[in-house]
Amino acid sequence: MYHVFSVDDHIIEPADVWSSRVPAKYREAAPHVVEADGREWWVYEGTRQVTMGLNAVAGKPREEWGMEPARFADMIPGCYDPTQRAKDLRADGIFASVNFPTLPGFGGRKFVTFEDKDLALACVQAWNDFILDEWCAAAPELFVPMTIAPLWDVELAAKEVERTLAKGAKALCFVEDPSQLGMPGWHTEAWDPLLAVCQEADLPICMHVGSAGSSTLLGDQIPIVEIASSFSQTARYSLNLMCSPAPRTFPDIKFVWSEGGIGWLPAALERADAQWEKHGYWSHLEGATPSEVAKRNMWFCMIEEPWGLTTREVYGYDRILFETDYPHADTTWPRTQAICKSLFADVPRHEVDAITHSNAERLFHFPLTVPIGNGAGA
Amino acid sequence: MYHVFSVDDHIIEPADVWSSRVPAKYREAAPHVVEADGREWWVYEGTRQVTMGLNAVAGKPREEWGMEPARFADMIPGCYDPTQRAKDLRADGIFASVNFPTLPGFGGRKFVTFEDKDLALACVQAWNDFILDEWCAAAPELFVPMTIAPLWDVELAAKEVERTLAKGAKALCFVEDPSQLGMPGWHTEAWDPLLAVCQEADLPICMHVGSAGSSTLLGDQIPIVEIASSFSQTARYSLNLMCSPAPRTFPDIKFVWSEGGIGWLPAALERADAQWEKHGYWSHLEGATPSEVAKRNMWFCMIEEPWGLTTREVYGYDRILFETDYPHADTTWPRTQAICKSLFADVPRHEVDAITHSNAERLFHFPLTVPIGNGAGA
Repeated sequence: MYHVFSVDDHIIEPADVWSSRVPAKYREAAPHVVEADGREWWVYEGTRQVTMGLNAVAGKPREEWGMEPARFADMIPGCYDPTQRAKDLRADGIFASVNFPTLPGFGGRKFVTFEDKDLALACVQAWNDFILDEWCAAAPELFVPMTIAPLWDVELAAKEVERTLAKGAKALCFVEDPSQLGMPGWHTEAWDPLLAVCQEADLPICMHVGSAGSSTLLGDQIPIVEIASSFSQTARYSLNLMCSPAPRTFPDIKFVWSEGGIGWLPAALERADAQWEKHGYWSHLEGATPSEVAKRNMWFCMIEEPWGLTTREVYGYDRILFETDYPHADTTWPRTQAICKSLFADVPRHEVDAITHSNAERLFHFPLTVPIGNGAGA
Repeated sequence: MYHVFSVDDHIIEPADVWSSRVPAKYREAAPHVVEADGREWWVYEGTRQVTMGLNAVAGKPREEWGMEPARFADMIPGCYDPTQRAKDLRADGIFASVNFPTLPGFGGRKFVTFEDKDLALACVQAWNDFILDEWCAAAPELFVPMTIAPLWDVELAAKEVERTLAKGAKALCFVEDPSQLGMPGWHTEAWDPLLAVCQEADLPICMHVGSAGSSTLLGDQIPIVEIASSFSQTARYSLNLMCSPAPRTFPDIKFVWSEGGIGWLPAALERADAQWEKHGYWSHLEGATPSEVAKRNMWFCMIEEPWGLTTREVYGYDRILFETDYPHADTTWPRTQAICKSLFADVPRHEVDAITHSNAERLFHFPLTVPIGNGAGA
């Protein structure tokens, strides 16, 4: 049996995440679910947004997939119920799971757009308290507590990370490139106070593909193009960070590129190092090369990438983390064991263990707890 | 000696390309060079634009590179003089060369923005006549005639391709995704009349990275990030075309992804095929898979990519074309022979011949002419 540590799953937030937590005066303005026009909607600050279709397809036959919004009643309970989720995961050999937000955006960017920034902060804190006190508390040996930050204010962000660290947070969920959201980017010193807190606490920063917004659906492209080419965004954003001052100022900082894939990485590192050498002089670039930063400060993630896996010797199997992506369309669930068996057939056992769990155990400071009878020690 | 067919070099247009060709009434509005504020400028339709820095560095030491605009006098003559260019190329073992425009944009998109579309058409035709009658005529056995099209009108574009075909054109220079320029994209039937002409004439369509504009310099990223991650754009745009109706309606059409690299390709094809299968039903996708389209309708290009070259068995060495990128910063010139020797050290000779010239000879219907004394038959 494969003991899987999934560094990338997704929560479909239950309807009361915010309404049960924000101060009474914010109850109408904070996200809450209403029924209207024959659908369920998230409503906040006078805006409404449908619940998600393709993001909650686990357990559905492919013939029923689509971009149409789903109701909670259309999803399997594991989408929004942590106890059911834990049961689903364990039954598939998944014994640790890092969970990304849905309504707040994969990196929590939604609240940056809120007009009332006190409300926005209350919403960030409500999501974090939901994760720490409710979701992870339902199965603390399985759910890895990852929290979001008030992205619009670096001092507030550092403070919120400190608050959640004290409550047991093991990772920070962030956006791939804050400059895409109109904030200072990685080539400034603006984020240094936050990065200092993360480095000091050895807190990995997880950046999910799409967290800075999507640029691939410009023009007339269709959804499959965005899905198939999503790795191109991770390539771009990770190269941006590899070439930025951030990992040079904070040499022990840890970045995780969630759902970005691995197979493109050797070509990217080859090209980046060559350009670093070529343009270094006039661009005033110094210090570690891009590939050195990648191998020191970054982790890359894989769902089901048989060819990609053959490239691991270029950057090292210790850089690869495994994802089950529950309940998205790419999820391995409920066939994770069969997929691992096929994917890792030709990979030495110590590398399989590293990729499926021990790299993540070390990175997140979260040792796997495998229930007796679940093949512990196998 | 390596006999090199370079499918990607660049012309720095001489100052009189347009002014010597457009009707007299357009002479002030068409692009022409003026000296002002201590610089040389291209001026057209009341707009002015500096000449290019990083795009004309061949022959300069790296310490002198930069984004600063160059004057013609700052460049080596091979940038803008076809006789000198041919001499430079031959001396480096390059016996065929496909050349992209500079001022019109890599895919000719500049003229889409012209207010006066009669002027715009005159400018497109002037560039094409310059290429056919002047640039290529200076060394017709070396320069492969590639022309641009009036992108704003598909009927005009088809007509201009027919006009230039009659004058000997061997390739069409196009933009990676017309929808990025506000025109219909590859998921429409809008381009069918043009694609029909190209398929009928077996005319390859070359799309240079950056031809649809750049999305990588959003936010605060620095130039090296755009340069290092440029392949991510080719990945996205080629996947878009692989998933579009175009190559399914025109199964013999030929697309070349210029300066997009090769090393990312296996990961992209693996992911695209998996998503094609996964989302095919609800997305109503049919016909050849993305990887089948890539291996049937597309060619990918390489400058100096040792690791990328090791991935060729996944898609086939018959898909790879070689580029010398004169006079850009990535050029192999004047060290093309030494670079080939190192790059191809472990590659069987028949594959080296295919990559360095014979794939391109077949694709462009342009057999190499190697002057006596230049290692012919070696």
